[in-house]
Amino acid sequence: MSAASNLPLSGARLWDSLMEMARIGATPKGGCNRQTLTDLDGEARHLLQRWAESCGLTLTVDRVGNMVFRREGRDPSRPPVAIGSHLDTQPTGGKFDGVLGVLAGLEIMRALHEAGAETEAPLLLINWTNEEGARFSPPMMGSGVAMGIFPEAEVLAKTDAAGAVFGEELRRIGWQGSADPTDLQRLGAYFELHIEQGPVLEHEGKEIGIVTHALAQTWYEVTVEGEEAHGGSAMQYRRDALMAAAPLIAAVEEIALAAGGAGRGTVGSVTVSPGSCNVVPSHVWFSVDTRHGDPERLAWMGERLHERAMEIARRRGVAIHVEEFWHSPLTPFDPALVTRLRDAAKARGLLWRDMPTGIGHDAVYCARRVPAAMIFVPCEGGISHNEAENITPAWAEAGLKVLADAVIATANG
Amino acid sequence: MSAASNLPLSGARLWDSLMEMARIGATPKGGCNRQTLTDLDGEARHLLQRWAESCGLTLTVDRVGNMVFRREGRDPSRPPVAIGSHLDTQPTGGKFDGVLGVLAGLEIMRALHEAGAETEAPLLLINWTNEEGARFSPPMMGSGVAMGIFPEAEVLAKTDAAGAVFGEELRRIGWQGSADPTDLQRLGAYFELHIEQGPVLEHEGKEIGIVTHALAQTWYEVTVEGEEAHGGSAMQYRRDALMAAAPLIAAVEEIALAAGGAGRGTVGSVTVSPGSCNVVPSHVWFSVDTRHGDPERLAWMGERLHERAMEIARRRGVAIHVEEFWHSPLTPFDPALVTRLRDAAKARGLLWRDMPTGIGHDAVYCARRVPAAMIFVPCEGGISHNEAENITPAWAEAGLKVLADAVIATANG
Repeated sequence: MSAASNLPLSGARLWDSLMEMARIGATPKGGCNRQTLTDLDGEARHLLQRWAESCGLTLTVDRVGNMVFRREGRDPSRPPVAIGSHLDTQPTGGKFDGVLGVLAGLEIMRALHEAGAETEAPLLLINWTNEEGARFSPPMMGSGVAMGIFPEAEVLAKTDAAGAVFGEELRRIGWQGSADPTDLQRLGAYFELHIEQGPVLEHEGKEIGIVTHALAQTWYEVTVEGEEAHGGSAMQYRRDALMAAAPLIAAVEEIALAAGGAGRGTVGSVTVSPGSCNVVPSHVWFSVDTRHGDPERLAWMGERLHERAMEIARRRGVAIHVEEFWHSPLTPFDPALVTRLRDAAKARGLLWRDMPTGIGHDAVYCARRVPAAMIFVPCEGGISHNEAENITPAWAEAGLKVLADAVIATANG
Repeated sequence: MSAASNLPLSGARLWDSLMEMARIGATPKGGCNRQTLTDLDGEARHLLQRWAESCGLTLTVDRVGNMVFRREGRDPSRPPVAIGSHLDTQPTGGKFDGVLGVLAGLEIMRALHEAGAETEAPLLLINWTNEEGARFSPPMMGSGVAMGIFPEAEVLAKTDAAGAVFGEELRRIGWQGSADPTDLQRLGAYFELHIEQGPVLEHEGKEIGIVTHALAQTWYEVTVEGEEAHGGSAMQYRRDALMAAAPLIAAVEEIALAAGGAGRGTVGSVTVSPGSCNVVPSHVWFSVDTRHGDPERLAWMGERLHERAMEIARRRGVAIHVEEFWHSPLTPFDPALVTRLRDAAKARGLLWRDMPTGIGHDAVYCARRVPAAMIFVPCEGGISHNEAENITPAWAEAGLKVLADAVIATANG
């Protein structure tokens, strides 16, 4: 077993820190509103800094505001092993999404400090800027710039709904550093602990999800063009765009289920025109979000969607256009690190399962450049991005232990 | 045959008048924008007045602006036989919706005047105020007040989107009279010629539709409540409000077709929340407009809708509420007048069929208080409420002849 099992890791201390951090931006319903680059984000960053420096970590801030705390290793020349996640939240977010990963990393640093323990490789604790993408879109900007997904200048120029500029807000709250964010592409390994944001682990009574990969995604826009008619007009001559769209919307779910494995299909946005109660719709627009753990099955889902659209268009005398507008490739996590996580879960006697993530995380962008891996812990009812988001202290502690064991095994391996 | 077949009815004169009236509010695409109580509506009313007075008619205007022209009968004590429709249009309306009925009535008056003919009962030509309901809602206000459907004071106080008040606009354009609109409840008969606003007659190669009744209607609001989830979340734990709504939307069409006869089902308006591409919808709202020529079948449609909603809700673990929010009873037209229209179509050797109207008309409100009947003529492609609305001079003339024959037979019968 790794050295970590002897570390004085404290689930209680982690929980207390989670609760203290949750006071910054606390909402009446028990959640958090601590959006990126607000004064509250600045306050949360200061609290993390005080905590981290009190256990001997040194802080570097890069030009997009990513906070990187370093704990020197016995061999400073080795590429560092990083633990990271984010402190920013959704406008009506919870206390755990992101925060758990950062503060679990902090707890590992505290325990190492308390034990006077050293690791071979240096360790880093990272708080990524703007993971949520709620105020400045897209999400995962800090890790995206670090890993070369987004150009730095483009991110600094982004504006929020009120017209505030990302770079200006970063300076206003005092958190623009001078380090080059892309230095982080030299990490030896990156680990992230996160709540599942789905109900699978809780439903199956598992304490740990070992995340093996991020699903490939393709998003489509579908447009159905029929003919406007009066709600009193005879059925047999109608070319009702919505009655053509309805079975195609239903088909998105059927296709996702038929795709097997981790197939996902979502229609999240629909517009019906002209949109009057007694007028047969002439136009329907809707989005289709498809995801799968197997790129070939994902492509198959797209083909089926096109086929169904053509079949419905032909049968109903309407025009249907299906256009791909976004694609994200399948991102596997590092097999050696994933094995290390599984070993840790087994050694700790925890109930675990492999699973993909259907949701983007900083770890997914990291995995495109450096060896990376992710741990999920359950969240109640699968609820997140919501003030009701909740986990148990036992779940947090299980995640902490697996994270610690894998990080230390990697840093010492 | 009735005296009408000897009348010098002129399809060409009717057509010329239609084209002349269409210049008032003409749109670049060949339609008309002559909304109720605008200056253009006032101009159209003056043109109709000039035409009508030049063939000896006398005008009375009532307190909601309905124009009623009278041609005295041999027996002035007999209840008058009226011909009516409307000169107001949709914002991007056509040249024929409503106008055909008014100007066909005018052509009958012209022909009678030219022939020096008399009828037993007096004849009336009516231009109803605000049939369209585009500027001031609801539609059919003038006939609605006359027939006691709407209180006069309520209609006079209605406002348009810009805040203009109906009664003030009526006075501003100089068309508020002093007659009591409900005097029109003493009509002996009411006839209206109108374009079909649907494709049935053209599709079947018929020249005349004998309208036997207006469909009964019931409108519902349907609310589906599921659970918001991330677009990356596993399919099996979702309670997707839209995937529950889609088969229920499709069921509206299935139910309308299964109802047989003149069953109609329309979902015209849909709202999906939260409405983000990668978020599983938690709420869907949609309208359902059901119509049928048999009130029992209409009720059956509502029962089926409720059943399907309950079945889907149970199967998918979502909540579905179906609430009726509007009902309009079946309105039969007067059997004796309908027979007279059929006789006229047969005698003229025209191709005709019986049909219901799924759409509201002034004649439908009239039918609730006085003997009333309606004639449809085809319109190209079933298109109306559109600048492309079109009919042929031959269709207009066929409608004119049937109208004239039935009106004169009724006035002399």
